[in-house]
Amino acid sequence: MSADKTTIKARLPRGFADRDAADIRATEAMVAAIRQVYERYGFEPVETPFAEYTEALGKFLPDQDRPNEGVFSLQDDDEQWVSLRYDLTAPLARYYAENHERLAKPYRSYRFGWVFRNEKPGPGRFRQFMQFDADTVGAASPAADAEMCMMAADTLEALGISRGGYVIKVNSRKVLDGVMETIGVTAEHQKLTVLRAIDKLDRLGLEGVHALLGEGREDESGDFTKGAGLANAQIEKVLAYMRGGVPVSDWVNALADGAVTGEVIATNPGHEDNRDTVRLLEREFSGSPLAIAGFEELGRIASVCAAAGYAEDRIRIDPSVVRGLEYYTGPVFEAELLAEIPNEKGQPVVFGSVGGGGRYDGLVGRFLKEDVPATGFSIGVSRLQAALAALGKLDTSAAQGPVVVTVMDRDRLGDYQRMVSDLRNAGIAAELYLGPSGMRAQLKYADRRNAPAVVIQGGDEKARGVVQIKDLALGKRLAETVADNREWREERPGQFEVPGKELVAEVKRIVDRS
Amino acid sequence: MSADKTTIKARLPRGFADRDAADIRATEAMVAAIRQVYERYGFEPVETPFAEYTEALGKFLPDQDRPNEGVFSLQDDDEQWVSLRYDLTAPLARYYAENHERLAKPYRSYRFGWVFRNEKPGPGRFRQFMQFDADTVGAASPAADAEMCMMAADTLEALGISRGGYVIKVNSRKVLDGVMETIGVTAEHQKLTVLRAIDKLDRLGLEGVHALLGEGREDESGDFTKGAGLANAQIEKVLAYMRGGVPVSDWVNALADGAVTGEVIATNPGHEDNRDTVRLLEREFSGSPLAIAGFEELGRIASVCAAAGYAEDRIRIDPSVVRGLEYYTGPVFEAELLAEIPNEKGQPVVFGSVGGGGRYDGLVGRFLKEDVPATGFSIGVSRLQAALAALGKLDTSAAQGPVVVTVMDRDRLGDYQRMVSDLRNAGIAAELYLGPSGMRAQLKYADRRNAPAVVIQGGDEKARGVVQIKDLALGKRLAETVADNREWREERPGQFEVPGKELVAEVKRIVDRS
Repeated sequence: MSADKTTIKARLPRGFADRDAADIRATEAMVAAIRQVYERYGFEPVETPFAEYTEALGKFLPDQDRPNEGVFSLQDDDEQWVSLRYDLTAPLARYYAENHERLAKPYRSYRFGWVFRNEKPGPGRFRQFMQFDADTVGAASPAADAEMCMMAADTLEALGISRGGYVIKVNSRKVLDGVMETIGVTAEHQKLTVLRAIDKLDRLGLEGVHALLGEGREDESGDFTKGAGLANAQIEKVLAYMRGGVPVSDWVNALADGAVTGEVIATNPGHEDNRDTVRLLEREFSGSPLAIAGFEELGRIASVCAAAGYAEDRIRIDPSVVRGLEYYTGPVFEAELLAEIPNEKGQPVVFGSVGGGGRYDGLVGRFLKEDVPATGFSIGVSRLQAALAALGKLDTSAAQGPVVVTVMDRDRLGDYQRMVSDLRNAGIAAELYLGPSGMRAQLKYADRRNAPAVVIQGGDEKARGVVQIKDLALGKRLAETVADNREWREERPGQFEVPGKELVAEVKRIVDRS
Repeated sequence: MSADKTTIKARLPRGFADRDAADIRATEAMVAAIRQVYERYGFEPVETPFAEYTEALGKFLPDQDRPNEGVFSLQDDDEQWVSLRYDLTAPLARYYAENHERLAKPYRSYRFGWVFRNEKPGPGRFRQFMQFDADTVGAASPAADAEMCMMAADTLEALGISRGGYVIKVNSRKVLDGVMETIGVTAEHQKLTVLRAIDKLDRLGLEGVHALLGEGREDESGDFTKGAGLANAQIEKVLAYMRGGVPVSDWVNALADGAVTGEVIATNPGHEDNRDTVRLLEREFSGSPLAIAGFEELGRIASVCAAAGYAEDRIRIDPSVVRGLEYYTGPVFEAELLAEIPNEKGQPVVFGSVGGGGRYDGLVGRFLKEDVPATGFSIGVSRLQAALAALGKLDTSAAQGPVVVTVMDRDRLGDYQRMVSDLRNAGIAAELYLGPSGMRAQLKYADRRNAPAVVIQGGDEKARGVVQIKDLALGKRLAETVADNREWREERPGQFEVPGKELVAEVKRIVDRS
């Protein structure tokens, strides 16, 4: 081969990641823990493929004959538009609609896997990431929504987040629509601006939301965001809603003390539990039938949670929860980690959302003559894994590698291979060193693979029917007690000789102890 | 909602499949068994993403600025061509080239997952299917190839295929090229036609191959396939090669008795083991340096396998193995199931290939200044699963479902939810019935979910502080002994009443026994 051959640059596509053994094992441990909880809740696994017809995802641009941005789309060899799934909910709706006649109803399923977004990648923002979803299709009962919230709480605890370290926030799209109804906001665009302002409470605080509900807000960089243009009386109503009926002065005082939304409600003496929050909200917005319907839902969710022993330290009615996707029709949930974790700039910030969901009674109905009620919850596995790693909740210790049988004499590969096979047949992970290097590099290789032991047999040992075994872990411990290099070479700590017949038993002893 | 609303047809994209719980569990059991073998061989997991830059896959049409057919390709929002991986080898080559400086060498890794082909789907041919690969990068030694073959054999046995039910066939691209050299075939196109003819021995038999090496062959439907146009002397040489040195008459007789390639070699008295096969081939083709290099490789693979105790009943040198992909540079392997399994027409046929691999010393070198030797083996998980299912080697029994707590009185959801939570907190899979239906439908639902037990509490039971438990498995067994419907209703076999406090303990007893 010529030295100046042209080569292709080896590079990952932007926004995609490779995963090493430790990463894979950590995800597997997480997924196993989540599954255990979901199966205890009576959900069964189902899987849909990575691609769906684009129209099934509802992602065609309204005015154009091509798919929406944000999803990866292509035409297959039948010239039909196909998209990579961007979440696990839209494919489930298609699956249920296609198979509903033969499914037990309500249909309770879970699934996990990779989803894809054709968006600009950034720190912690990937184009391929993992979600873990559970959904109940065919149940209109708020008990189905309550169950999602309880399961989310149980899941976070199963993953090692202690009680108080997270909260499942619950709200209702109907209540939000009722608030709009109450203040007389009907234009779709203005509604969206108001919802976006409400959604920013955690980041911008009360003042920021106030500005965004009114004329607008200038951020630190001088950029101006146009507001919803509400009148003062309207703004007051929205703020009254957001504080769950607590007088504004209490709210402002609490904010001044550094408390956040849920805490204001939780610590206010009038708000002993979720049902009180609902009652307080009802008092303010009893003029809106939509809001009343939403409060009724929230009240029933709160009742079921309370009956099952989930108090406000775990599941909390929170008027500021909006959730982005447009298909929600009733209760919406957000699972948040309350721990402060350094962001990409090293500043400690509340980690926030690691999952969410809600009721989407219209999604399945896109395929069927009748609407089908459905509710679900989705965990952002990749995002939650990053949080758990930062919190030290993942086992990041290197897995034990294979025993390495070294090659001292290339003509005796058969002998060495026989030792490897004997070890493998005894259930011990083992390998023959297959590279071109000498003994020194072979020992270094074994060390890098985290091998518990190395097997060596030169011509002399072969003649005497023995093998040398190097116990790498023991060797490291002993090395700390050895004074100098010469002494080390003479003593060879952790290395010993055994008859060939005892190889497997001796190695097994070392492996089991490591 | 109007009854005449327009709906989207719910349909899977062509060539893709949904997977239900039994399918998912069967794949998981397979994958776990394969992993265990691969880890015992000292391979560690690594994962690459689902997409690669198309140029990294080497899939651009030489004369065009767009990707090859057969792969799903699209342009991301940076207008770069990206393709879904069509196998797990090309992404590994990219991964190794990108990370080689920090990897322990030889780099031994395994990975499994979905791959995608943009081809016409058919029975058993999907556009998304699963592969499980292991590769050793940085090892030129034939011992690395031998290891792949031994691991393939161990894997099939770990999956329940008994010895004699499979064979790992081994050949070498160098030998095949040497045969071409010997008979004087140099044109690339003619070479490919000869290789394709050799590859068809299992399906067409000796006569069919003979025709395809010569003028061509007409199949049953009357379609004519043009042959390689070899002269008779050339054809004789190829046939002599394919029978591994056995006189043609023996070969023809054996074929007439219904034996296939490998068996001819295995049953011929001159071919006690793989090394004999190699020696016989060497005698015929000693004039070709390429063939000699290939025989040397095959001989060393055979030696290592023999030393490790893998005889010709498991790993067999077979001159008819070609393998489709063009990047192989040395030994090639094919794992075949010998069992006859009904095909889509119901005819029993030898199932054939469930995996394969080989040495690809040039693939990593596309990215680096120097070539890097590499060898690997890939299992077609989806295809093998179909075979294991047909052979009854997969556990297809329905998993136990959750205990169903029924809803008799809608106003007491809290009570029922409390029972569900108590059961879940005791580690029992349980759920509240969340649908709108009455008791009869709820019991039917529990049956369809394969629930071990159903819990019922009406107002009367509530007043007396008791619950009814229906043991569904016991009920079914008892039902067989009950004479008529009236007796059934009176006796309610398998149903009994317990104090509320004993609910969890009683249900646990039933679940553990089921």
